[in-house]
Amino acid sequence: MKKNIEYNSIGTIFTSFSTLEGMPVQSLAGKDFTGTIVIHEDFENGLMDLNGFSHIILIYHLHRVENFKLKVTPFMDDKQHGIFATRSPLRPNPIGISIVRLLKIEKNIIFFEGVDMVNETPLLDVKPFFPLFDNRLNATSGWLEGKNNLENVRSDDRFVNSNNFKNI
Amino acid sequence: MKKNIEYNSIGTIFTSFSTLEGMPVQSLAGKDFTGTIVIHEDFENGLMDLNGFSHIILIYHLHRVENFKLKVTPFMDDKQHGIFATRSPLRPNPIGISIVRLLKIEKNIIFFEGVDMVNETPLLDVKPFFPLFDNRLNATSGWLEGKNNLENVRSDDRFVNSNNFKNI
Repeated sequence: MKKNIEYNSIGTIFTSFSTLEGMPVQSLAGKDFTGTIVIHEDFENGLMDLNGFSHIILIYHLHRVENFKLKVTPFMDDKQHGIFATRSPLRPNPIGISIVRLLKIEKNIIFFEGVDMVNETPLLDVKPFFPLFDNRLNATSGWLEGKNNLENVRSDDRFVNSNNFKNI
Repeated sequence: MKKNIEYNSIGTIFTSFSTLEGMPVQSLAGKDFTGTIVIHEDFENGLMDLNGFSHIILIYHLHRVENFKLKVTPFMDDKQHGIFATRSPLRPNPIGISIVRLLKIEKNIIFFEGVDMVNETPLLDVKPFFPLFDNRLNATSGWLEGKNNLENVRSDDRFVNSNNFKNI
């Protein structure tokens, strides 16, 4: 029961990471890096009141991913796990989400802190982060339990030296 | 700089809500409702180790949405806000996310609690919820600040009696 689902980007995320190497693997690890999102001008009015939120959820297309794998060895571990039990980009639908800190919005440009995506990533959607909807304080986390060395985890050559990513 | 981005669903979400009316507007409000996801058999191996997580993030296509609006009056308020400052479904790219409680996985079938989507919603991706990545305890929330009557908020006819949704 496959369906073709088509989206156009609503904007582009600009970051200082033109390659995957050295890029933070999660937004929290990228908190020292700022990025800029240029929303297509047609959608500028859709940003009204977003500036009241401290955090926003970015949903984006992982445009550099060419293939998917059903089992991967993620950065946070040295064992294989099912792709859907990881945050690896090598997913059947290469969709990424990041919760980032909103710095400011000027017209159609969003400035944020918490970069974990490559430059020129096509943005699919922005949603406000709302603690009541989005926090789960009692969550337990399987193989990821106790892994909190996030600050030091950077994207290495595990994925880069493969034909799963497009070179640019 | 529009791009065509194409996905196929990785499975289908089955719920007891065949219409929008009466449906919880967020996953937490739907905590008394259970749903079932049938993942396409080709992807079953991708679910390995997901069962260790208490919560999962569902990313899905809001297949009933036909049009978008740049400004909407959401269920949680009586004032207009930009679509990207709300969780309304009437988005340029109708993508929904829900953080739901994982009950169990049997082969390619996921059972979960926290339904806020209509029956037969096409699933785009599943990710494990990881508190360290996904919680933001210090977040502030603009116009949504202090609005916590979520339990009683249900989808009403505000959207249903319009031509923004497909009837089925």
